[in-house]
Amino acid sequence: MRLAILLAPALLLAALACPAEEAKTTTIPPAAAAVAETLRDRALQQDTAWDIVESLTTEVGQRLAGTEGDARAVAWAVAKFRALGFDEVRTEPVTFPVWLRGEESGEVLSPFPQPLVLTALGGSIGTEGAPLDAEIVHFETLDALRAVPDDSLDGRIAFISTRTQRYRDGRGYGLSVGSRVDGASIAAAKGASALLIRSIGTSNDRFPHTGNMRYAEGGRRIPAAAVSNPDADLLLNMLRREQPVTVRIRMQAATVGEYTSQNVIGEVRGSELPDEVVLIGGHLDSWDLGTGAIDDGAGVAITMAAGALIASLPERPRRSIRVVAFANEEQGLIGARQYAERHAASIRQHLIGAESDFGAGRIYGLRSNAPDQAWPAIEQIGAVLAPLGIELERGVGGPGPDLIPLVARGMTWAQLAQDGTDYFDYHHTPNDTLDKIDPIALRQQVAAYAAFAWMAAQAEGDFGAEPKGL
Amino acid sequence: MRLAILLAPALLLAALACPAEEAKTTTIPPAAAAVAETLRDRALQQDTAWDIVESLTTEVGQRLAGTEGDARAVAWAVAKFRALGFDEVRTEPVTFPVWLRGEESGEVLSPFPQPLVLTALGGSIGTEGAPLDAEIVHFETLDALRAVPDDSLDGRIAFISTRTQRYRDGRGYGLSVGSRVDGASIAAAKGASALLIRSIGTSNDRFPHTGNMRYAEGGRRIPAAAVSNPDADLLLNMLRREQPVTVRIRMQAATVGEYTSQNVIGEVRGSELPDEVVLIGGHLDSWDLGTGAIDDGAGVAITMAAGALIASLPERPRRSIRVVAFANEEQGLIGARQYAERHAASIRQHLIGAESDFGAGRIYGLRSNAPDQAWPAIEQIGAVLAPLGIELERGVGGPGPDLIPLVARGMTWAQLAQDGTDYFDYHHTPNDTLDKIDPIALRQQVAAYAAFAWMAAQAEGDFGAEPKGL
Repeated sequence: MRLAILLAPALLLAALACPAEEAKTTTIPPAAAAVAETLRDRALQQDTAWDIVESLTTEVGQRLAGTEGDARAVAWAVAKFRALGFDEVRTEPVTFPVWLRGEESGEVLSPFPQPLVLTALGGSIGTEGAPLDAEIVHFETLDALRAVPDDSLDGRIAFISTRTQRYRDGRGYGLSVGSRVDGASIAAAKGASALLIRSIGTSNDRFPHTGNMRYAEGGRRIPAAAVSNPDADLLLNMLRREQPVTVRIRMQAATVGEYTSQNVIGEVRGSELPDEVVLIGGHLDSWDLGTGAIDDGAGVAITMAAGALIASLPERPRRSIRVVAFANEEQGLIGARQYAERHAASIRQHLIGAESDFGAGRIYGLRSNAPDQAWPAIEQIGAVLAPLGIELERGVGGPGPDLIPLVARGMTWAQLAQDGTDYFDYHHTPNDTLDKIDPIALRQQVAAYAAFAWMAAQAEGDFGAEPKGL
Repeated sequence: MRLAILLAPALLLAALACPAEEAKTTTIPPAAAAVAETLRDRALQQDTAWDIVESLTTEVGQRLAGTEGDARAVAWAVAKFRALGFDEVRTEPVTFPVWLRGEESGEVLSPFPQPLVLTALGGSIGTEGAPLDAEIVHFETLDALRAVPDDSLDGRIAFISTRTQRYRDGRGYGLSVGSRVDGASIAAAKGASALLIRSIGTSNDRFPHTGNMRYAEGGRRIPAAAVSNPDADLLLNMLRREQPVTVRIRMQAATVGEYTSQNVIGEVRGSELPDEVVLIGGHLDSWDLGTGAIDDGAGVAITMAAGALIASLPERPRRSIRVVAFANEEQGLIGARQYAERHAASIRQHLIGAESDFGAGRIYGLRSNAPDQAWPAIEQIGAVLAPLGIELERGVGGPGPDLIPLVARGMTWAQLAQDGTDYFDYHHTPNDTLDKIDPIALRQQVAAYAAFAWMAAQAEGDFGAEPKGL
C-alpha cells in the first residue's frame, strides 16, 4: 500500500461530482446471492489464502521490484494460479528502472556517539561511496521545513520528526507521508545535504520504515533515509541538550538500469460475457526488508483464494473474474499504470474493481463510488457480507492504489475496508512477516472478496463505469 | 538480567534448608515507617529515575562490557552519583576478557534463498573470516539434541527451535535459556559446525536476541547465533517441505584481550552504623544491540533515584545505603563476583540486598529469604509498600543476578518482584530502548526501593545473614 490514502479524498470528490448515469437500475439476481452465501460460508472453513501467503513468504520472501526475488515471485504466481484451477493464466510485461538498497548504516558522531538505525527511502540516491557527515537541523513538520528560506540549511541534514498517528483506517499515514515523498526535494531546495525523517510508522519497534520517495523534476538530488521511531526520539533527546548533533550516513542506494517484470493475471472465464470483467487483486512486489506478508502477500493471497473458490464451483460466473497480481506497486503503481495503458480501450469492460492492499486485518466496511442506479446492487452485496461483520458505508473511502490508474480512466471501484489499526506498525519494515497475519481473520477476507466478486459478475446492468478525469 | 531465574529455585531451597537463626526478633521502629511513607509518597511525585535513564540511554547508549561505551558509562555513573548528592562515590576495578560482535549476517542458500536475521550469542567465536555454509538439522528442544549420538551431525548446523513462553514472572526464560547457554557445547559434541537457536524471547518482532553462552571446558568451540522468532518460523516452514535447508553464516565475533571496568558505588552514609550496609543496585553494562534502557538502565536509575531521595532527607539512616552499579553482569556476573570477593570479609555487614534487574514493569511482590526472626521486619516493610499494590509473598522468588555471589556468601536477599510480562519482548535486542519504559510505573519502583532501603537500614536487629553454601 502506497499512496491510496493520500488520493482517496480526491477520488471521492470526483465520484460525488460525476454526472448522473443513465437511469437503468442495476440489480443482482437472487440466485447469485444464494451462490455468494455458499461461497462466503465455504471460505470461512478454508485456509487457502493462508497457504498461499505462507507459500509466497517461505518460497520467495522479499521481492523488491527488479531483483531476483521479483523474477521468482512471477514464476511462483503463474504456477500458483495454475495450481488453483484458474481457467486462464497469463503475464503482461511491466518495465521500470531498478532501484537497489545496498549496504547502509548510520551513527551519531557527536555529542554522544551512538549507532543510528536507518534505511534508505525507495528511489533515493546513496552517499557516493563515502560517509556523509553533517549536523542535523530539526523540523517538527514538513511545513516547517518549507517555511525556511532557500539555501539556508547550508549543507546540514534536514531532520523531520513528525510522528505518524494510529487510526483504524490508516489516515495517519496520509497525514505524515508527505515528508517521505517530497521531503528530499524540499530539503535540497533549502540547501540540505541529506534528509532524515522519523519513520512513517506507528510502532515503537526499532525498525526504520522504508517506502517510496521522489525527486522534483530538475531539482538537486540528496540522499533520503528514515530512522526508526526510537532513533528519532534519541535524536530529539540529544537536540534538547542544545548542542550541535552531528551524524554520519552511509548509503549505497542507487538506481541501476531497467528491468521487465510481469503483471500476473489469473482469470475465471465468464460463461455469458467473458470479455466483461470484475477485477480483484493485490500487488506481487514488496519492499526488501521483510518478506512482504502483509504488504501485499495477504492481498495477493486473499484475492487468489477468492478466485480459486469461485473456480471450484461447477458453474462459471456470467462475466469473467480477473485476479491481477500487479508488478511494482511500491515504486509508483508501475504495473497498474502499464496495465491501464495496455487495457485503455477496454476500461468500460472492467465492470468494477476491488484491490486488497491494506494488510490482513478484518474487513469492516463495504464502500464504492458506484452511482445511484447501481447502488441497489451494492446494497445486495452488502446484505450478503453483513454476517461477516461488514457494514455498508456510502460516501467514504477510495480504491486500492493499483486501481487508481483504472479509476482515473473510468472504472468503478469497491473497497472492502480493512482494520488497519496495526498495519503501519509493520508495513515497509523487516517486521512484515507471516506471523503478523491472523489466519482466521484471513478467512473472513476471502469470504468477502469471493461473495463480492461473484455477485458483481452476475449483476444485471453495470456499475456505471465512466471516465472520472483523474 | 541473565541467569537469576535459572538459579532462583536452588537459592530458595537453600534458604528453606538453612538452620534456624538466633531467636532475637528484628523489628523496625515506627518512626522509620513514617519516614518511609514520606519517601514513598514523595517518589510518586518525581521523575528522577526517568531523568537518569533518559540521560544514560541518550548520553551513553550501548555499553557492552569492555567497549568505549563501558568507559563512558562508568564516567557517567560517577558524575551522576555525585550530582544526585550521594555522600560517597567510588569505583572498584573489575577485570574481564573483552568480547566483540563485529559484523554478522545470515542467509538461506537453498532451497529458497532469503536473508536470515541473526546475531551472535555473547562469548561465541566467529566464522574465521569466511562464510560457514551448512545444512541445518532441526531439534525441537535441547534435550532432543542431547539425545542424538555423538559425532552424528557430521558438520551440519544444529538448529534448536524451542519457543520462550510468556509469564509475568519471566519463568519461560529459565525454561528455554539452556539452549543459549549450553547449546553450542552440546552441538559441538554431536559433530555440529555451528549452533542456531530460536531467540530466547517472547515477541514476534524480527529481532534476534543476544545473550551469554559458554563453552564447556576442553570442548570444541563452534559459532553460536540466535535467529529472530519470525526467522525461526521461516526455517521451520522451509523444513516442512522436506528438502535440505542450507544456510550461510558470517560472524566476526571474537574475544580479544582484557579490560578493566569499574563497579561504581554511591553511598548514603549511615549515622550510627556506617559500616553496615543495605545494598541496592542494578548493572551498568548492557548488550550492544539496543541502548540498554530496560536491561538494566532502569534498574540503575530506580536504585540511584531511591538512594538520592534518601540522601535528600535532613537526617541520615542508621546504617549506610549502598547503591551499586555493577560492571559486566551480562557476561557472567563478573562485576558482582569481583565485588563479592573484594568484600568477602564484610559480607555479614551487608544486612540485606535487593537488585533491580528485570525491566521497568510495576512491582507486585515483596519477597525475601529472611529467616523467621527477621520476618516481622519484612512484614513491616510490606505494610508500607502495600499501598503501591505490592503484596508480601513468602517462600517464593530469588535475588537479582548480581546478588547471587553475595547470597552464596551469606547475604540475605529481598526481591521487589516486577511484572515482566513483556520483558523478554525487548531484553537483549535492538528494541531495548527508552520508549519501552513507562515513566509512571518507574515512580512506583523508586517508591518501593526507597521505602525498603530506608526501613531496612533502620532495623533493630539483622536479617539473618548466614553463609548459604551456594
